[in-house]
Amino acid sequence: MRILVQKYGGTSLGDVDRIRMAARRTANAVADGRSVIVVVSAMAGETNRLLKLAGCFGNGTDRQRLREVDALVATGEEVSAALMALALQSLGIRARSLTAHQVLLRCDGRFQNARIRSVDSVELLSLLETGSVAVVTGFQGIDDDGNVATLGRGGSDTTAVALAVAMRAEECEIFTDVEGVYTADPGVCPDARKLDRISSEDMLELASLGAKVMQIRSVELGKKGRIRIHVRSTFSDREGTYIMPEIDDLESPVVTGIACDANQAEVSIVGLEDRPDLLAKVFEPLAIDDISVDLISQNVGTDRTVTVTFTIEASRLDAARASIEPVVRDLGAREVLVDRDVAKVSAVGIGMRTHAGVAQKVFALLSGAGIPIRLAISTEIKVSCIIPSRHGEEAMRILHAGFGLGA
Amino acid sequence: MRILVQKYGGTSLGDVDRIRMAARRTANAVADGRSVIVVVSAMAGETNRLLKLAGCFGNGTDRQRLREVDALVATGEEVSAALMALALQSLGIRARSLTAHQVLLRCDGRFQNARIRSVDSVELLSLLETGSVAVVTGFQGIDDDGNVATLGRGGSDTTAVALAVAMRAEECEIFTDVEGVYTADPGVCPDARKLDRISSEDMLELASLGAKVMQIRSVELGKKGRIRIHVRSTFSDREGTYIMPEIDDLESPVVTGIACDANQAEVSIVGLEDRPDLLAKVFEPLAIDDISVDLISQNVGTDRTVTVTFTIEASRLDAARASIEPVVRDLGAREVLVDRDVAKVSAVGIGMRTHAGVAQKVFALLSGAGIPIRLAISTEIKVSCIIPSRHGEEAMRILHAGFGLGA
Repeated sequence: MRILVQKYGGTSLGDVDRIRMAARRTANAVADGRSVIVVVSAMAGETNRLLKLAGCFGNGTDRQRLREVDALVATGEEVSAALMALALQSLGIRARSLTAHQVLLRCDGRFQNARIRSVDSVELLSLLETGSVAVVTGFQGIDDDGNVATLGRGGSDTTAVALAVAMRAEECEIFTDVEGVYTADPGVCPDARKLDRISSEDMLELASLGAKVMQIRSVELGKKGRIRIHVRSTFSDREGTYIMPEIDDLESPVVTGIACDANQAEVSIVGLEDRPDLLAKVFEPLAIDDISVDLISQNVGTDRTVTVTFTIEASRLDAARASIEPVVRDLGAREVLVDRDVAKVSAVGIGMRTHAGVAQKVFALLSGAGIPIRLAISTEIKVSCIIPSRHGEEAMRILHAGFGLGA
Repeated sequence: MRILVQKYGGTSLGDVDRIRMAARRTANAVADGRSVIVVVSAMAGETNRLLKLAGCFGNGTDRQRLREVDALVATGEEVSAALMALALQSLGIRARSLTAHQVLLRCDGRFQNARIRSVDSVELLSLLETGSVAVVTGFQGIDDDGNVATLGRGGSDTTAVALAVAMRAEECEIFTDVEGVYTADPGVCPDARKLDRISSEDMLELASLGAKVMQIRSVELGKKGRIRIHVRSTFSDREGTYIMPEIDDLESPVVTGIACDANQAEVSIVGLEDRPDLLAKVFEPLAIDDISVDLISQNVGTDRTVTVTFTIEASRLDAARASIEPVVRDLGAREVLVDRDVAKVSAVGIGMRTHAGVAQKVFALLSGAGIPIRLAISTEIKVSCIIPSRHGEEAMRILHAGFGLGA
């Protein structure tokens, strides 16, 4: 049995005609001899419509409320799944919709951001064996108490890859409204090229590009489960980008893509006493409050006090300040400086593993253009620089051209 | 624990404000010390919207398709249930929505017309014991294969009464857009009175009145399970009509109400040979095809041939003709006559058991007004006459006045 998982996002199911178009695509795969599992998102606009209804009855984040919002929102995918099954049937294809309850897709109980734990592959397999297409609701699972929990925005990608892994599918196709993954945001770098393939690792590092195309958690899952993911457009028959769990480093270009994340903020704690447990003290409360810290630097000044600088997601800035305030007071810091106007520009490529000097070249390209680098980090497969936001797009174009990524 | 089941229909949940109004009503019952189970229908218009979407992908009644249409339509109640739970929470009431899967409401697998088999009262009871309101999706159940099946239009009433029976509730309140059950259709008899109470048996016989107010199957269930049903308006605090599983006959008026069912057709098979197995032969194919026959008469003509006349629901007329055709041929009938323009007018009351002469009075009243009676049947608690449709409303007014039912 050659199993194919296809995931259609909300835009791909935006109206009756588009559902029909998606169904025809699935019918072609069936005619091709594949056993197909279709994973669907809610029709475009539906999730927001439901959230707006929920908003009419107050706000809040208590578990009781979140449970109901999840139960409400999850109906969007149920509607899509039933309609998709009907559309397939109208083409003479056997099809059956399956909710998270019916496919026994288990997850933890974190409403609105649940994680998949397991899938009942036996039921699904016996359905496929009857020659039927299985149309599974994306974006949702059932927790240990039988509650419906959603996987967070874009969670249907994760559903699709999780099913592909559980069912040992040949491939997982992610149908979306773009042609694939690009070397950079084409809105910023007009000569950005669509990549024919990219390694899972590069895709993970290109998070800010990738996040627009598919959910990062699903790429991790695909990597772990060794599933080939094909990100492609619903609106054309051209191939998109294959995200490969393994690509031989030697074949890969040194730099695969350039990403820029403008949703960053920089925090500096100035005038700290120099003591060995300093960093531990500063970052402990942030860890407790689940605030991810990205780049970190520590500088000793001429007055022998220490300045600790780090970046976080801009949306977490207020939470971060509240979190570190007591520690900052305890450690007798002079002041806390904050800059919301920073961006992180990154060059990514697993080819870096076998090529030296990439970080050096990034620094040279940026400083050659007069762009100040505030913080930088170089890992095995990525070089990231924190720069003032106003230089973000310029930096992308310089790096994109400098590494010869253009079309 | 004093358990109350409340059922809100689609009009009672027509928009956000009405859901809020319903939630306040439930909150009052909670404040009153009741443990409340709320059963909800889909918001007004939602079921039709979903059916229209399904209609975009063809028609047909194969099981595969009906399964998906049921899965689709059932989301309407899920949305209502989650919103109702949120509305209750916003009033400071603990509440949890439960789908048919979650409350383990089992039914048979007849899509679009399933029958409830059992309810898991243990789960529901433990939820009520935590002080939470349980908001259950009406109109749907889970069959043995885990498929969602709907109970047919108005099935939420049945869900409510079934839960009331399973949970040994004190009462089942059915909130609707009318004030209760009337002695006759107020649109036809302007002086029709709202009944304060009615026996389950009378309510069953007043099917054509009752069907406008609540589903007949739910009345049967309430009778069997000895549940008091209170049919009342969502839009006022006045008491409606109590449907009582037992009312002492002696207390009851002779005639409780007058009903008229215009959805009738009369079929006559003329010129049949007179033989003892005649009726069995004629009605066997109808029974096999699940076509309910109502009134039946058999007359021997002067030529010693027999005419069999019966009434059925007008909507089943074509099916009935197809069903009896082979038998009619075998029995050598002369012709089959059909009249779609007949109505059945009925006077109902369990008081008839102890009062003679009701049938006689019905016949006298109608013939006194020059209304021809084509067929009639008199049971312990009902007298029904088949008359030409054009006399239907007039007949109702005459009987309503003749039995002194007016306000």
